[in-house]
Amino acid sequence: MDDDSRQARWERRTEVPLSLASALFLAAYAVLVLGHTLPAVWRHVCLAAMLTAWALFGVDYAVRWGLSGQRLGFVRAHPVDTLALLLPLLRPLRIVKVYEAVQRHRGEPRLSLHARVVFYAGLSAALLGFAGSLAVYQQERGAPGASILTFGDSVWWTCTTLTTVGYGDVVPVTPMGRTIASVLMVCGLALLGAVTGSFSSWLLQVFAREDGNDGDDGNRGEKRPPGS
Amino acid sequence: MDDDSRQARWERRTEVPLSLASALFLAAYAVLVLGHTLPAVWRHVCLAAMLTAWALFGVDYAVRWGLSGQRLGFVRAHPVDTLALLLPLLRPLRIVKVYEAVQRHRGEPRLSLHARVVFYAGLSAALLGFAGSLAVYQQERGAPGASILTFGDSVWWTCTTLTTVGYGDVVPVTPMGRTIASVLMVCGLALLGAVTGSFSSWLLQVFAREDGNDGDDGNRGEKRPPGS
Amino acid sequence: MDDDSRQARWERRTEVPLSLASALFLAAYAVLVLGHTLPAVWRHVCLAAMLTAWALFGVDYAVRWGLSGQRLGFVRAHPVDTLALLLPLLRPLRIVKVYEAVQRHRGEPRLSLHARVVFYAGLSAALLGFAGSLAVYQQERGAPGASILTFGDSVWWTCTTLTTVGYGDVVPVTPMGRTIASVLMVCGLALLGAVTGSFSSWLLQVFAREDGNDGDDGNRGEKRPPGS
Amino acid sequence: MDDDSRQARWERRTEVPLSLASALFLAAYAVLVLGHTLPAVWRHVCLAAMLTAWALFGVDYAVRWGLSGQRLGFVRAHPVDTLALLLPLLRPLRIVKVYEAVQRHRGEPRLSLHARVVFYAGLSAALLGFAGSLAVYQQERGAPGASILTFGDSVWWTCTTLTTVGYGDVVPVTPMGRTIASVLMVCGLALLGAVTGSFSSWLLQVFAREDGNDGDDGNRGEKRPPGS
Repeated sequence: MDDDSRQARWERRTEVPLSLASALFLAAYAVLVLGHTLPAVWRHVCLAAMLTAWALFGVDYAVRWGLSGQRLGFVRAHPVDTLALLLPLLRPLRIVKVYEAVQRHRGEPRLSLHARVVFYAGLSAALLGFAGSLAVYQQERGAPGASILTFGDSVWWTCTTLTTVGYGDVVPVTPMGRTIASVLMVCGLALLGAVTGSFSSWLLQVFAREDGNDGDDGNRGEKRPPGS
Repeated sequence: MDDDSRQARWERRTEVPLSLASALFLAAYAVLVLGHTLPAVWRHVCLAAMLTAWALFGVDYAVRWGLSGQRLGFVRAHPVDTLALLLPLLRPLRIVKVYEAVQRHRGEPRLSLHARVVFYAGLSAALLGFAGSLAVYQQERGAPGASILTFGDSVWWTCTTLTTVGYGDVVPVTPMGRTIASVLMVCGLALLGAVTGSFSSWLLQVFAREDGNDGDDGNRGEKRPPGS
Repeated sequence: MDDDSRQARWERRTEVPLSLASALFLAAYAVLVLGHTLPAVWRHVCLAAMLTAWALFGVDYAVRWGLSGQRLGFVRAHPVDTLALLLPLLRPLRIVKVYEAVQRHRGEPRLSLHARVVFYAGLSAALLGFAGSLAVYQQERGAPGASILTFGDSVWWTCTTLTTVGYGDVVPVTPMGRTIASVLMVCGLALLGAVTGSFSSWLLQVFAREDGNDGDDGNRGEKRPPGS
Repeated sequence: MDDDSRQARWERRTEVPLSLASALFLAAYAVLVLGHTLPAVWRHVCLAAMLTAWALFGVDYAVRWGLSGQRLGFVRAHPVDTLALLLPLLRPLRIVKVYEAVQRHRGEPRLSLHARVVFYAGLSAALLGFAGSLAVYQQERGAPGASILTFGDSVWWTCTTLTTVGYGDVVPVTPMGRTIASVLMVCGLALLGAVTGSFSSWLLQVFAREDGNDGDDGNRGEKRPPGS
């Protein structure tokens, strides 16, 4: 019990710093990819920031592993964390958690369950799409026969991919770019499936509630409650 | 309570005029985009109609903000309204509400919940698609290297996009056209997700009800109720 | 009551003949489209068969309208029937109903609810796809710049369209072909949404039932019922 | 009853060997397709392994048919098994069952219902995609005008197809390749629909549970139970 609470305390305390580190990682990566005409010193600063953030993720992972008292079972029980350690670009998805923490702290009323799933999955998809655009742009830039020439092309490509429209006017051509694209497709498909599925449920709820309100108005005879 | 009822009264009274203004806005925009060979005076009339409608939306937004007694919280609490003020082409989605108001007024029996969601989401998608076709056509027309050359191309492109088929035979190439396309994709994905999700639920309901009816016929032994 | 039963009797008696007429219509259309090298006499026979079938649909629609005792309300209350009268290629979807009638007559055990929705929506999608392939092929054949050159191309195009994959290697280019394609996309999207949605629910059911069976085995300690 | 238990016993005993045969079939097929520069003797070994595995599937099917005591009804009652006999590349989906059997044997805690559906449908999609990539690559390799030139192209094409993105930069052009692609599309659509649908439900569950936990914390006033 005590061990569990130490883990929980660790997670609560590291939540905000780790999320800031995630944001820093993504921002530094963006500068590194987009600012390829910056003086070398800035690029080195960005690289250093990325490595520092990555090191923090590693330390957090190690501490949580240690606190868990598990062996290899920890790796298997936390597949998302392990994946996020290896692919730190997936980390920014944690920012979603911080947003919730901040909102909870302010005591603001929370959205309904479905609306929240729509919101978080949508936000995750946007962050994932931004990270994916950067990564694919970095791979494709300068590749022979590439159709993704500018970062704008890459963002456009990401939009068509995440929505599964897939025009094919701009596509990655390098093996690495295609690998990143495949990861993006699978993650995006699941996230956007969650968005549309929850949106659909939410819409049904809103319509169903509206029906209930109409009944309360009492000015439409068709479904008045028996006692009225 | 009184403040709330004043808000509700305002919304009830402005519902029809605002929807007419939305329809006017869309119609004037359509004439402006499609009738680019009309004499300048007609184009100015259309522009004036659009600006008038937009001003009405602004007045309505301001009055509701005032009646709400809130400060910036109002903007945050009504994200859809704020967005519709900035992008008045999304306004026509309100026509859906008017249709319902008219139908309710006539006292016609309403569709079942799922059928209504299918119907409204489908109608919204159609209106959104029409507005999107116009906007993309306006951006792409005359752009160098454009593949959307006629309004017919633009409508075809919208159909392939909203259904997420995305052949890619005609695609927007200008940055602005691609931005509009991305908004269209995301909105369309959510709406059509709602259409297919609700259609699926509705079909299940219909089949389930049919099963019940079959049981009432009493001529199939497999699932007769115990007392029969 | 009597009027209603006369309607019901009419529908029951015409079910099989009308479905045969639908199948005849589709078959004659297929011969007409695919057999464009047949001697003219055969083509005329096919055309005659199509027109006869269409006339039967019209007679059925008229009789049901008459029996209903309604005026224009009938048209509004039966949108699918009205549409199927105007677009008889959508008729073959009725064959699905006959299949069920035959199966019921034989007293065979029926599939579970979700499995049936998957089956019927899938069958409808296949019939719709076949009719759509024929119609698009007829429009595109011989059009300048067409990429759908053979019926095989058209079937391949239909597969990529109904699954919303949409490669864009073969696409309709004529206005009429694109209109048919749009109808196909929207219908197909709804049907396949129903297929995937129900398949997903069905899979969940199967897995849930399997869990229940495992519980009955009693050889896994984790979720034994309290009294065992 | 006894007959039924003999069937069940047969299925339990053959589960692991048949799955190994499925894996062997897929592995041999992969070597055959990818290793087209291997010496002929190796290719013959692979072919022999494939035929042996296929023969085993046939024997299993025949034994189960015999044990069932049914005539043609067996074929109709086991459509998936019949299909898997004709298209042994669909067999590897059985590996999923073995994974579960192994996990159950070890007594490991099982995932929640939705998580399991996501996992199994995802694993099935991956296996199906791998088998499909091989089959399409074999058909397209060396075809005139083919755009799928390497196995990497084929894998990339499979990713874009199964996620229904469908860029169309690489597409099958041979009739046989397109037939395989269509089967892949339909199966993939259903499987990935199951993945996204279940993922969406699972996410909703996770969020709903989290809400419950927040309520237990007791440190947020908004939704405390009345008696606290």
